[in-house]
Amino acid sequence: MKIFLDCFPCFLRQTLEAGRIAGADEKTQREVLNSVMGALQEVSLEATPPEIGWLIHKTIREATGNLDPYKEIKKSHNEEVLKIETDLTNLVKESSSPVINALKLAGTGNLIDFGPERQWNDIHEIFEGFMTKKSNFFDFPAFENSLKNSETLLYIGDNAGEIVLDKILIKLLLQETDIDIVFAVRGKPIINDATMEDAISVGITDIVRVIGTGGDFPGVVLESCSEEFLQYYERADMIISKGQGNYESLSDKNQNLFFLLQAKCPVIADKIGCKVGDLVLEARHARPQFP
Amino acid sequence: MKIFLDCFPCFLRQTLEAGRIAGADEKTQREVLNSVMGALQEVSLEATPPEIGWLIHKTIREATGNLDPYKEIKKSHNEEVLKIETDLTNLVKESSSPVINALKLAGTGNLIDFGPERQWNDIHEIFEGFMTKKSNFFDFPAFENSLKNSETLLYIGDNAGEIVLDKILIKLLLQETDIDIVFAVRGKPIINDATMEDAISVGITDIVRVIGTGGDFPGVVLESCSEEFLQYYERADMIISKGQGNYESLSDKNQNLFFLLQAKCPVIADKIGCKVGDLVLEARHARPQFP
Repeated sequence: MKIFLDCFPCFLRQTLEAGRIAGADEKTQREVLNSVMGALQEVSLEATPPEIGWLIHKTIREATGNLDPYKEIKKSHNEEVLKIETDLTNLVKESSSPVINALKLAGTGNLIDFGPERQWNDIHEIFEGFMTKKSNFFDFPAFENSLKNSETLLYIGDNAGEIVLDKILIKLLLQETDIDIVFAVRGKPIINDATMEDAISVGITDIVRVIGTGGDFPGVVLESCSEEFLQYYERADMIISKGQGNYESLSDKNQNLFFLLQAKCPVIADKIGCKVGDLVLEARHARPQFP
Repeated sequence: MKIFLDCFPCFLRQTLEAGRIAGADEKTQREVLNSVMGALQEVSLEATPPEIGWLIHKTIREATGNLDPYKEIKKSHNEEVLKIETDLTNLVKESSSPVINALKLAGTGNLIDFGPERQWNDIHEIFEGFMTKKSNFFDFPAFENSLKNSETLLYIGDNAGEIVLDKILIKLLLQETDIDIVFAVRGKPIINDATMEDAISVGITDIVRVIGTGGDFPGVVLESCSEEFLQYYERADMIISKGQGNYESLSDKNQNLFFLLQAKCPVIADKIGCKVGDLVLEARHARPQFP
């Protein structure tokens, strides 16, 4: 998915927020904004949002010397969600449709995102009533069918905190099916996206193999990915792609992809055909199942 | 009030929205965005938001050749509000506190604004329950006191549509007091701000003298105002200043000013000390009343 002119104001908003989180003073904030505006004047509209996100956060890292501005935020989100992991797991497992509700929980958790504009203050707000969320864009039948016909699953994570909820879904899939799962995190810190450090700290590494994408884009830019990641990506029978950044970089790819996310901005919502705030499980380019 | 870095994303949003309303194709939208980003890289943080607004809309007028892109929107808003003028007037006059409720109505009408991000779709939504609006930033006692001690009032209008509600307030003040009122509109078209054409079409010219500011800023930039406007501005015993643009350009001035507006963006809300969405009647720099 390419950038739209509507993304430009949002890129500046993100630059300013991220600059402040990185500890930039007002003079540096201005310099970073100017630098990003200079880049936006030149950028091709063929670029994807994660490529611009990468540029913004690289500019901020270089201007502030802060290589991982969201480190404390990520740690705190992981800890906050770990505290309620058992309660959420029980809620899901005791419900009438555990897999559907684990998908809804992991999808809802995609709100823990510092890229788009945030709509919440307290992380606990996010989980209120997640099981009763209605969505016209939640293609569980396709997901269930694919699950039955797949032996391997690549699960591409998105944000810290959110990955605790991915872990709940993964544990359930391991219990309910024989599928092999590999979980992917970003290769290096970018925004509040989960890295290997986060995967270890929330214990995903204890239950499945975890790999890095190899890149530090807030999404999966295949050209930047490691050989290891690409092998899993190309060979997986199905892929769960979490969040907007992964959607933005993979929505045009020809794999058996399931996009699980919260639509958090009008551009994405428009692309999907849903509304901002909708929970989405979209089956894209699903391979036909031969008998 | 000066611009903040937080205004930069909003300037781009406004550029894009206004460019589209002016009929710019995607290529022209990009050119205008680039031009505005170039200007923002250079601009002094001592500038006021109406000065940047002026620059944005001048750029769009020049790029599109459309000298009054909001002409039809303004006409339609005037007509829509004129249709309910009698009902709203009766509601206010039959209420227990007509002047307070006419102030609330005129203040609420400030939502009809195409500068900041809009929160409504149908203009009728705006007026629902305006009389029961609670506000901690509504200094009616100071306004009432000033009214008792003033012989002349300069009322600086803001947007088309909204001026029908200003007219309701003005008629009531003329009935209830002996104060002389002069109403000011923008000197030339800018965004959806009211001009002389709007004042004539809604009939304000039938009840009070109407003057132009002389400038085409979406606010009152004194350096650009006509000698006539400045004479009224300097000699008025009290001034009602409607909306954000007038607030942004006059909030530091030393006149007996009453700012009546809806706080529509976080920067203004922060400056006032209120929340986005609050109705505000702020007495600023009120002259001490000598006995």
